[in-house]
Amino acid sequence: MKLTRLFTAISCVAIASAALAAQDREAFPAPSTLSPSMAETVAAPLVPLWQMEPKTTAEWEKIAGDYAKAAGEAALKLAEDFDVNVNAEKIANVPVHVLTPKTIAKHKEKKVIFYIHGGGYVLGHGVSGITEAIPMTAWNGYRSICVDYRMAPQHPFPAAIDDAFAAYKAVVKEYGAENVAVFGTSTGGAMVLILALQAHAAGVPMPAALISGTPWADLDKVGDSYFVNAGVDNVLGNYDHMIKAAALAYANGHDMKDPLLSPVYADDESLKAFPPTLLISGTRDLFLSNTVRMHTRLLLNEAPSELIVYEALSHAQYYLNMQAPETRDHYRLMGDFLKRVWSKN
Amino acid sequence: MKLTRLFTAISCVAIASAALAAQDREAFPAPSTLSPSMAETVAAPLVPLWQMEPKTTAEWEKIAGDYAKAAGEAALKLAEDFDVNVNAEKIANVPVHVLTPKTIAKHKEKKVIFYIHGGGYVLGHGVSGITEAIPMTAWNGYRSICVDYRMAPQHPFPAAIDDAFAAYKAVVKEYGAENVAVFGTSTGGAMVLILALQAHAAGVPMPAALISGTPWADLDKVGDSYFVNAGVDNVLGNYDHMIKAAALAYANGHDMKDPLLSPVYADDESLKAFPPTLLISGTRDLFLSNTVRMHTRLLLNEAPSELIVYEALSHAQYYLNMQAPETRDHYRLMGDFLKRVWSKN
Repeated sequence: MKLTRLFTAISCVAIASAALAAQDREAFPAPSTLSPSMAETVAAPLVPLWQMEPKTTAEWEKIAGDYAKAAGEAALKLAEDFDVNVNAEKIANVPVHVLTPKTIAKHKEKKVIFYIHGGGYVLGHGVSGITEAIPMTAWNGYRSICVDYRMAPQHPFPAAIDDAFAAYKAVVKEYGAENVAVFGTSTGGAMVLILALQAHAAGVPMPAALISGTPWADLDKVGDSYFVNAGVDNVLGNYDHMIKAAALAYANGHDMKDPLLSPVYADDESLKAFPPTLLISGTRDLFLSNTVRMHTRLLLNEAPSELIVYEALSHAQYYLNMQAPETRDHYRLMGDFLKRVWSKN
Repeated sequence: MKLTRLFTAISCVAIASAALAAQDREAFPAPSTLSPSMAETVAAPLVPLWQMEPKTTAEWEKIAGDYAKAAGEAALKLAEDFDVNVNAEKIANVPVHVLTPKTIAKHKEKKVIFYIHGGGYVLGHGVSGITEAIPMTAWNGYRSICVDYRMAPQHPFPAAIDDAFAAYKAVVKEYGAENVAVFGTSTGGAMVLILALQAHAAGVPMPAALISGTPWADLDKVGDSYFVNAGVDNVLGNYDHMIKAAALAYANGHDMKDPLLSPVYADDESLKAFPPTLLISGTRDLFLSNTVRMHTRLLLNEAPSELIVYEALSHAQYYLNMQAPETRDHYRLMGDFLKRVWSKN
């Protein structure tokens, strides 16, 4: 199943008025260093999804609803293909989906992945937000709890992070923080980092590990790759259309330099408290600077932080083509990271 | 002292016939995420050095000689500024420069940095090849042994790696492999990796650690950032002129897929034997793909490998502006890596 195809389909049913962003740079062919399958994904035309410019709440609702429907159906199909059970529950009054692999090894019985989906604080409602967690559950064999947090524009900052943190606290009570790894990509990747800031501030125990994929660490258009990889990244394209609209809708007038909106601005003391953190990006990623800026800040605060940057991949592309061997490798490396972290407990 | 200025000066005295490469992409201003000093370096015009196209041995000699003179004088001045003693010696009949900091802490007395300079296998003769090792010696307080290996076109493959490996073996005998870290950038970064392949193949003990800055891991123009960062990287510019000429001169007809020329093609078994390895690049680096491809291969072979990618920096720019706070941070992070490695011994 290719999410790029899915996104293209979604864009066709969504608001058609969105002009394609002016591509700041020419398209680059896929390098020979990729598998044929991933090369196809990397060489595909720009996904139109993030080039839309919704202005009214009705327009946002239409986009989010269409996305939830299409991506949600695809996610349930994917779960079936992967033999992953999906169960809708509530934790601390926050809706979640609990993903269970077909079998769980004994030493993984007490562990859990707390998963926070991406989508610019505007997309990913319901089961449409569980896609990335499905192979994590199936291939790495952990139970995953996927939080279905409230989103903008109906529920701006801090609704999303309040919901995620409320559910996290309940999960930590049940499993013990040392058995919880928090995982997410893009907006989810930022929320993973923000959750650690919230936990530190509230005196709630830190999870055993964080996996923060290409985090939206700076909500504002600040950082080199927002410019240099504009028109190179074929998933996001650029900051200037729906990403910007989503940032404004979610921040809702709050200062984007607030670390609870842009965790790259967290203070040193908070970062020193971080648990082992894996950050992930791709060389064509519009959020490459978000990722490496966060990583360097953690390293300079002596937080145990690791970075992986994948050859030629655009934003979050490491989980958008389930057929590519690179995707399998990516999930394996996340599993290796968790193994390293948990073997130390 | 700014090496970018130095490089500009060198290019003026060198062969003037070199056409500036067609810049594939427009220049990007420096992002606001950098210090004012580093922003100046990042926004500087393309360094003309690597845009030359020497054809005869005499032309290579002129470029290398001019470089050695200008960069050599600058290096000695830098050593003076940093209070680092430079001593020319021979080890296993290979010329080296031994760099000694003003004071050495007791626990660092028995440690040594084995340093391999860069320069495309064509530049960096004599003291012109010690620049990067000077702040490593001064700021991190280790003795450094800088190998002055033979270079192309006069001495093609495998002269350079033979010299480096011969000196390494002698250093290991004197210090013990567990006390040696091997360090280098660009061509030196590749030679660091190749040295580990040589050691593995020959049954010579691995060093305690490798620091491989933006390694020339694929000698051929293979890898995404050779294309996507062409015209973005303001140090190297592109592959197509002097870099290509240097690759051809050094490879001298050998297959560039040979891991002793392009270590990214090393077999799995060799990579599994690697010691803790730190790889370093920048988001604008023409060699970003070289760096991350190597890192991913090491990770997939469960070698303890770390990656740092610096915001907005071009090739090797992390040591080309000694005034920038980013440069100080970079050397600190390398020191932290060595501390972690050696605290485990």
